[in-house]
Amino acid sequence: MREAGADVGVDPWGNLFGIVPGSTAALAPLAAGSHLDTVPNGGIFDGALGVVAAIEAAAALREVRTPLRHPLLLLAFAEEEGTSFGVGCLGSLGAAGRAPALEALTDRAGRSAADAIRAFDPGVPRRTMPRAFAAYLELHIEQGPVLERRGAPLAAVDAIVGIARMSFVFRGEANHAGTTPMDGRRDALWGAADLVAAVREMARGTGGRAVGTVGQCTVSPGATNVIPGRADVTVELRSADGGFLDSLCGEAVAAARACAGRFGLEVEHRNRWTEPPVPLDARVHEEITGAARDLGWPIVSMASWAGHDAKILAAIAPAGMIFVPSAGGISHSPLERTAWEDAARGADVLCRALLRLDSWDGA
Amino acid sequence: MREAGADVGVDPWGNLFGIVPGSTAALAPLAAGSHLDTVPNGGIFDGALGVVAAIEAAAALREVRTPLRHPLLLLAFAEEEGTSFGVGCLGSLGAAGRAPALEALTDRAGRSAADAIRAFDPGVPRRTMPRAFAAYLELHIEQGPVLERRGAPLAAVDAIVGIARMSFVFRGEANHAGTTPMDGRRDALWGAADLVAAVREMARGTGGRAVGTVGQCTVSPGATNVIPGRADVTVELRSADGGFLDSLCGEAVAAARACAGRFGLEVEHRNRWTEPPVPLDARVHEEITGAARDLGWPIVSMASWAGHDAKILAAIAPAGMIFVPSAGGISHSPLERTAWEDAARGADVLCRALLRLDSWDGA
Repeated sequence: MREAGADVGVDPWGNLFGIVPGSTAALAPLAAGSHLDTVPNGGIFDGALGVVAAIEAAAALREVRTPLRHPLLLLAFAEEEGTSFGVGCLGSLGAAGRAPALEALTDRAGRSAADAIRAFDPGVPRRTMPRAFAAYLELHIEQGPVLERRGAPLAAVDAIVGIARMSFVFRGEANHAGTTPMDGRRDALWGAADLVAAVREMARGTGGRAVGTVGQCTVSPGATNVIPGRADVTVELRSADGGFLDSLCGEAVAAARACAGRFGLEVEHRNRWTEPPVPLDARVHEEITGAARDLGWPIVSMASWAGHDAKILAAIAPAGMIFVPSAGGISHSPLERTAWEDAARGADVLCRALLRLDSWDGA
Repeated sequence: MREAGADVGVDPWGNLFGIVPGSTAALAPLAAGSHLDTVPNGGIFDGALGVVAAIEAAAALREVRTPLRHPLLLLAFAEEEGTSFGVGCLGSLGAAGRAPALEALTDRAGRSAADAIRAFDPGVPRRTMPRAFAAYLELHIEQGPVLERRGAPLAAVDAIVGIARMSFVFRGEANHAGTTPMDGRRDALWGAADLVAAVREMARGTGGRAVGTVGQCTVSPGATNVIPGRADVTVELRSADGGFLDSLCGEAVAAARACAGRFGLEVEHRNRWTEPPVPLDARVHEEITGAARDLGWPIVSMASWAGHDAKILAAIAPAGMIFVPSAGGISHSPLERTAWEDAARGADVLCRALLRLDSWDGA
């Protein structure tokens, strides 16, 4: 960041940032970046690519002596993955003024997030980051197979999907796996298994508008020779359409009741987490698309099926995202890979989009 | 046992036994009994009822001064449930000359079965039990709802079902629950859930000739937001018909392969345990039925869907079992209950059957 001409600091949430001055006084900064943390055993692209690309854009603009009118805020957010303290986008939540209480968040060793941040010393001054941005741009790997399948090198993201997480408990009657006739059973796993199939068929039937996953399934008592008396499953649904997501949640609950009713079971559900979809800024989306066009590269429009810092930043600034392909759709793995030419194209579009955004008045 | 006129001992496997002398020299004993151990948090009838009924039969015969021609061997087997050392029917296996190595079996505290037996001091002499029986009779609660449903107070058991236990591992690809499109998923739980339904429908389709249970189901990695890459399930099948049981095992494996193939998964299976069905002795069955008829009580014939010591004893003696109803089919629970009049009827049939068996020549 310093080599790119930025004045560097670390904010109270452990986010690193650098400010490159603009040529026009009193304009709010254009911001660009992503996060630096990774999941355990993750790859080298998720997050870091967007940070490096933003710095590279600043360095390139400096090299060609083309200062922006706006200050350029380079961002390297902390703790986007939520691996250490269980809260995703912790750094960007802080930057957006929505951080949870840091003393109450602890890692596995029992250390609080507040203590971890106090101990974090990147050798730069602790400072407050500007909170009013003219726009926020984030380059990120797709983390899915859509671009690769469509043969497209780039996407402008139009929305970040909403996520609904529910848990279901099916209760039947634990009983002897031998002496209980088939027609006298109230097997909780029968209901849960049918719900797995129902969620699959429901999500498949949306024609790509939603995905649905049962990621956890536990049965109790869990012995080979005992009929399960209880089965717990989680259902996660995602869609970029908030109303549609709500209706799918209703369908999942209705399906669970039908599965339970079929076998004389009881079922309870709990909504554990709901995040509405976040549409990204249409004008920023247009500048990203225009930047790709300027450079002669095809670009498609798609939703992001994963959460990103841009989802948080969208609440305080016009925000946009650029996706580049993930080979095989693989992510959160050492096998995560994006071709360097794809990474470079993404960085070029980021830089070009910053130039286009810089022509905005005030914003 | 002593009050009933028996000479009491404990054998090398911790089985308590008592011998009431017979009137004719050189006849092998008639044996009657069951087990004394229970599952944790079990009821008071499972096992103990058969032991008490055998002693009561000896006491009754003594009271009316009707000694049997055969010696009467009263049996209280140890560790039928397999709770402490993981091997069911440990006591009767020992009595039948088929005990596994006791030094190698350990309980949760790490104590070997050999040490536990050495420490067991019921205050009676350690002795060897006779191993040649004229017949073996066991009264036991049904542990299922069949008698209650049929409105029958008694059953003569014609066979003890065979049990096949298999485990299946479905392998797909763990992946991001958001960014992986529905048509690009290889969700291991999809295969496992469909197998749960397939086993259910297969067993239901046998018209009561078999039961099938998936008692364990675990998914990995087991996170709300990760598509399961692996799912493990167990399948237990029971039937009194050995050939039919084998064919059902084949059907379960074929069903698992079909479930895996449907979703691009791999599946492996392992046969963990197979016990063939054990038919009980037809002549003993006839004497039990005759004894009920003598007493004017209706009796039905049925298979035992649970294992019992009689299954082990059947290998060394003509063996028979009498079932009495379990209220609501409940067992292995403090709620386990058999009406006292039902218990008394069972004990009366046991005693009467011993008298009928006593008229057998030599056997």
